[in-house]
Amino acid sequence: MRVSLKDVAAHAGVSIKTVSNVVNNYQHVTPAMRERVQRSIDALGYQPNLAARHLRKGRTGMIALALPELGNPYFAELAAAVIDAAAAHDYIVLLDHTGGRREQELLVSQGFRARVIDGLILSPIELESEDLRDRAENVPLVLLGERDYDLPYDHIAIDNVAAARAAVRHLVGLGRREVAFIGDRRGRSEPAQLRVRGWREELTAAGLPADDGLVAATDGWGHADGAAAMTRILDAGRRPDAIFAYNDPMAIGAMRVLHERGLRVPEDIAVVGFDDVVEGHFGAVTLTSVSPDKSAIGRLAVESVLARLGGEAPEPRRVWADYRLVERESTLGRGAAKDGPTRG
Amino acid sequence: MRVSLKDVAAHAGVSIKTVSNVVNNYQHVTPAMRERVQRSIDALGYQPNLAARHLRKGRTGMIALALPELGNPYFAELAAAVIDAAAAHDYIVLLDHTGGRREQELLVSQGFRARVIDGLILSPIELESEDLRDRAENVPLVLLGERDYDLPYDHIAIDNVAAARAAVRHLVGLGRREVAFIGDRRGRSEPAQLRVRGWREELTAAGLPADDGLVAATDGWGHADGAAAMTRILDAGRRPDAIFAYNDPMAIGAMRVLHERGLRVPEDIAVVGFDDVVEGHFGAVTLTSVSPDKSAIGRLAVESVLARLGGEAPEPRRVWADYRLVERESTLGRGAAKDGPTRG
Repeated sequence: MRVSLKDVAAHAGVSIKTVSNVVNNYQHVTPAMRERVQRSIDALGYQPNLAARHLRKGRTGMIALALPELGNPYFAELAAAVIDAAAAHDYIVLLDHTGGRREQELLVSQGFRARVIDGLILSPIELESEDLRDRAENVPLVLLGERDYDLPYDHIAIDNVAAARAAVRHLVGLGRREVAFIGDRRGRSEPAQLRVRGWREELTAAGLPADDGLVAATDGWGHADGAAAMTRILDAGRRPDAIFAYNDPMAIGAMRVLHERGLRVPEDIAVVGFDDVVEGHFGAVTLTSVSPDKSAIGRLAVESVLARLGGEAPEPRRVWADYRLVERESTLGRGAAKDGPTRG
Repeated sequence: MRVSLKDVAAHAGVSIKTVSNVVNNYQHVTPAMRERVQRSIDALGYQPNLAARHLRKGRTGMIALALPELGNPYFAELAAAVIDAAAAHDYIVLLDHTGGRREQELLVSQGFRARVIDGLILSPIELESEDLRDRAENVPLVLLGERDYDLPYDHIAIDNVAAARAAVRHLVGLGRREVAFIGDRRGRSEPAQLRVRGWREELTAAGLPADDGLVAATDGWGHADGAAAMTRILDAGRRPDAIFAYNDPMAIGAMRVLHERGLRVPEDIAVVGFDDVVEGHFGAVTLTSVSPDKSAIGRLAVESVLARLGGEAPEPRRVWADYRLVERESTLGRGAAKDGPTRG
């Protein structure tokens, strides 16, 4: 006979609720209680059957999270935040790796897993609004990321234009007059557009040049792409006194090139990244970066999916997650107060 | 009526096999053919139903991959390799985040998802052989990672002792005489033990000191843990001329401390990491590292699971994946030939 939650509770001499809390790995169970319940679980061979519990409600207990790049630490950190947020609601997360390709993103958004998942969290790179407008699939969809969509779906993002302006304002405030942008994308509606727009708006407001010669387009978002873009800017004879990079890996790639060329960061060229990944906290020169609140993004995304599953049908909404600019050595110089937070 | 693969093939004027290749995202389809089939898929509104296909065989089409840390770039890169390898067999991957906690690893290994998955790939941190010996669950299990198990399961790993010896041999070959190890773990059977053993064996073979004062234990595996360990070694008055770190993030954290103390890498202290994550290819001093063949590990793990599903019941086996030592500036100095491979 199958061992139930009730059997475990009786064996351990605790309430069913307590066993449930342990099984679901809630944080507020004491280690001693956890140990006690675990001993009964082991003794009886109890197997929590999350799948069955969800199935009784006509659900699968699974959310898919489709991300463009697991190798990018920002997405790895974001995935961990979504997995944690889902676990708090007994949900498990299927991970899809779209590679940021439109075709793969279409496949995912149009429900190639419709029978397996209760909801989908998608961080698209190439998908356009029109690709999603005639989506037949009725599995709840929540969008993440750096895009302007005009669609009947919840969209969790930070205000990329404002965040980019905060980064550039910081550089201008330090007296920098020629700020290059690394990581523009070729193509009409790429995520980088919002950050380029913020860069352009802030420089223009400060009466500083924001010409195309200061914008380096790249094919990817990795360290090597940042390094290649920095090389192109220098080889074209430009010598900006600051770099704002699309993300931290690209900023770090660019700093490697500056180091090889004998240019000092920040004395000769100050550098700001985006995403605040752990890697930027170390290195010979720590990296100033825009820091999106990743846990909030994960939590808001999971809650949006579950609210729609629960029969709530509020108007689709854009939810802004918080961000801050974290100032470090790449703009403030050696001995800068580490992790001094500034509101964006 | 449901649109079938056959309908799409007729509409596109291609074979069913070709449509299947496109739907399954195989690499050898030309972009033109992919575009042509995709147009028919879009026109007919075809939705590939992978789940149903697997269900007909009594399978779910899903493999769980349980990893201790998604935030660690090694595991993110490994997850991407497993996802790619699984996709080649129409399998999707559920990601579990165990946090490296024994309790969570037990839950996963004892099948809390048994009805949802066809197989499990587990990279345990704290789980002991005895925890798995009386596993009742009969979902195929494949183990990954840096442990010595004596268990009836396939285990994919690189030879950690030999790889650690190769790293230390490289340092000794460069004339280093006092090689510290950063990242030992408190506890009896931790993964780091194999690397410490390799460190000790190689130093002993070279007639060099391998005393406990040169081994720094840490609580975690991140940059901050490496930095803290390096600080402790220096504050204890030791001045090793080389560091072998448990992984790359710890090596990079240690290098940050050396930089802050005005010690030069590699002139004063050479540094070798483990895992060869992308981050180590950049930075002011590029990092020499042991590079496990992550794609091979992903492929071997998926193939092991599927072989057992397919009714093959070979003897459980230990499969060694390949590795190499990639020598960079942190041991060879500025201007070192980048990415020059050496066999371990």
